[in-house]
Amino acid sequence: MTQETTETAKTRPIWLDEDGRTVKVIDQRKLPHQWVIADLNTVDDAIDAIRNMFVRGAPLIGVTGAWGVYLAVRNTESQHSFIDECNRLKLARPTAVNLVWAVDKVLVDVLSAKDDEGRMEAARRGAEDLAELEAENCRMIGVHGLPLIEKLSAYKGGHPVNILTHCNAGWLACVEYGTATAPMYAAHERNIPIHVWVDETRPLNQGARLTAWELGEAGIPHTVITDNAGGHLMQKRMVDIVIVGTDRTTYGGDVANKIGTYLKALAAKDNGVPFYVALPSSTFDWSLKRGKDIPIEERDPDEIRYVQGWEDGGMHTVLVPPEDSVAANYAFDVTPARLVTGFITERGICGASETDIRGLFPEMAA
Amino acid sequence: MTQETTETAKTRPIWLDEDGRTVKVIDQRKLPHQWVIADLNTVDDAIDAIRNMFVRGAPLIGVTGAWGVYLAVRNTESQHSFIDECNRLKLARPTAVNLVWAVDKVLVDVLSAKDDEGRMEAARRGAEDLAELEAENCRMIGVHGLPLIEKLSAYKGGHPVNILTHCNAGWLACVEYGTATAPMYAAHERNIPIHVWVDETRPLNQGARLTAWELGEAGIPHTVITDNAGGHLMQKRMVDIVIVGTDRTTYGGDVANKIGTYLKALAAKDNGVPFYVALPSSTFDWSLKRGKDIPIEERDPDEIRYVQGWEDGGMHTVLVPPEDSVAANYAFDVTPARLVTGFITERGICGASETDIRGLFPEMAA
Repeated sequence: MTQETTETAKTRPIWLDEDGRTVKVIDQRKLPHQWVIADLNTVDDAIDAIRNMFVRGAPLIGVTGAWGVYLAVRNTESQHSFIDECNRLKLARPTAVNLVWAVDKVLVDVLSAKDDEGRMEAARRGAEDLAELEAENCRMIGVHGLPLIEKLSAYKGGHPVNILTHCNAGWLACVEYGTATAPMYAAHERNIPIHVWVDETRPLNQGARLTAWELGEAGIPHTVITDNAGGHLMQKRMVDIVIVGTDRTTYGGDVANKIGTYLKALAAKDNGVPFYVALPSSTFDWSLKRGKDIPIEERDPDEIRYVQGWEDGGMHTVLVPPEDSVAANYAFDVTPARLVTGFITERGICGASETDIRGLFPEMAA
Repeated sequence: MTQETTETAKTRPIWLDEDGRTVKVIDQRKLPHQWVIADLNTVDDAIDAIRNMFVRGAPLIGVTGAWGVYLAVRNTESQHSFIDECNRLKLARPTAVNLVWAVDKVLVDVLSAKDDEGRMEAARRGAEDLAELEAENCRMIGVHGLPLIEKLSAYKGGHPVNILTHCNAGWLACVEYGTATAPMYAAHERNIPIHVWVDETRPLNQGARLTAWELGEAGIPHTVITDNAGGHLMQKRMVDIVIVGTDRTTYGGDVANKIGTYLKALAAKDNGVPFYVALPSSTFDWSLKRGKDIPIEERDPDEIRYVQGWEDGGMHTVLVPPEDSVAANYAFDVTPARLVTGFITERGICGASETDIRGLFPEMAA
């Protein structure tokens, strides 16, 4: 994988280069301090980009997986090794359900093509179509989430609606608009005053680094807070609504999302603050009912022990705890359906129960 | 204030130098990477050490305030300016109730002395006695908290008892033993196997830096986790008991402690995990019933925006969010009594209600 730094801002976090061979991604580990584009030329590059979080967020992991299938088509000689490569791709990270879903989707298209050229074309079109689908889904999440904010704004007489979000479920995590951020962008476009409390989201600080950067670029007022602060803000009536994304949601309504989401959901419940989860239907796991069956990824403890940031014109990585203290890095937790007010999907809003979810997606009947 | 670096570990975080004039404190901002002792020669030095968190933790803030009174006696000419200096001391930080309590306690002793020498002696003895009292209180918190851990250990058939703690309520925050850590040290001394989940405790990482260091020095197995992780661990039955300290607890049982404590208390309640608060009676505020009346300090947002740590043999301070993103830094939150299983005090354990608290401290009858 090679990297380049460019001044050109792209509006999407992943795209196929004009050469038709190289998949380009924003290296999100470096944001907001450095704008670095990484080249993915092989399946290993795609796996590395997913596993080491050049790209992250359920929809974008899915789209990267789809482009990984394209790279697999380009780099394999036999159907057998092609399928092997796709299976390796699906294991790059365990929690986001979109990865398996997206790889399988494009894989099926490829397998039904007739020749090499057809397979290449099928993979490319599969990945591009998926990116368009995710972008459109996010746009529709904005359309359906907007009235929630409009209602709160009317209730507050035009005072800014205070929205709390955890991690980054913005366009960087998706393709455009984002999931949790889509209603925020939609409100901001319509000049509805909002203010976003941005959980910094340890250990990798995707809130402080990515959500704050996204909102800043869009001119949306926001304040970075520690992950510890949300409960206090809710007690003080300083949060009107919580909107988060999800890496996998069961058809029973249990929500796997970035570690710490469950704590915010508890505080929202305790203080009567509505707690919404924004997701495209690709993030529902139609094979799982209960959240406790979702595999929770445990990542490198050094993501906790070391913090990366900017000093004197360069990136630095500093050790916080004692050198010989161990750390444990659970990446996600599961928020039970009983704490979720509703889901904002591309098709509308529904309650957090199997009945409500299947009511909105009747084609997924058990 | 001058600073020195020494290799000699002291067993207390504050002491009077042999010269009888200089109060010495461990500069806790530098731990665990640097062992720096700071000299306090004036009231301003003491205020600076409290405000800028060379020293922190309710009992230690109190003892530092008491030594500040000693410095005020040494450095003022009139009773009027002495009282002024004491009043300035009391305002150094707003949330910990021990500061006002300790300064007033020593102040009264000083005012009843007859001459300069007597005042000096009264202040010195007042500060020393307070330090001894806090140490003894913490020892007794260990004595009374130990049976809780012993019972869990018996129930678990000798498997390590998993204790979760937030921030640092160890000897660094007190004088010896600590409050929340006292039962842990007592169990460890008796060879009861324990393992401590250490919340890193953003923004200043007192858990990752100080609690992890303390436990490591004592040879107690521990694992640093993000503040986001505790809820997940409780859902997975990986926490047997939560023990935290407090900066101020009302006589109604509401607990002000480091921001994020409330979120852990919610998760403990949701998962049936006992949630204990360890405190000396000096941390009860006998003038307040309701936690919502406790003033919550808002500190410099740069404590969130910048993270300090160790790299290449030196301390570095790195910026995490975008340069132009603002942050808000609420230092404490209030955990309502209904979420607290009990208080571990120097006199024994009591429930989190006015009746139970006054039952244990009948001399504080309303």
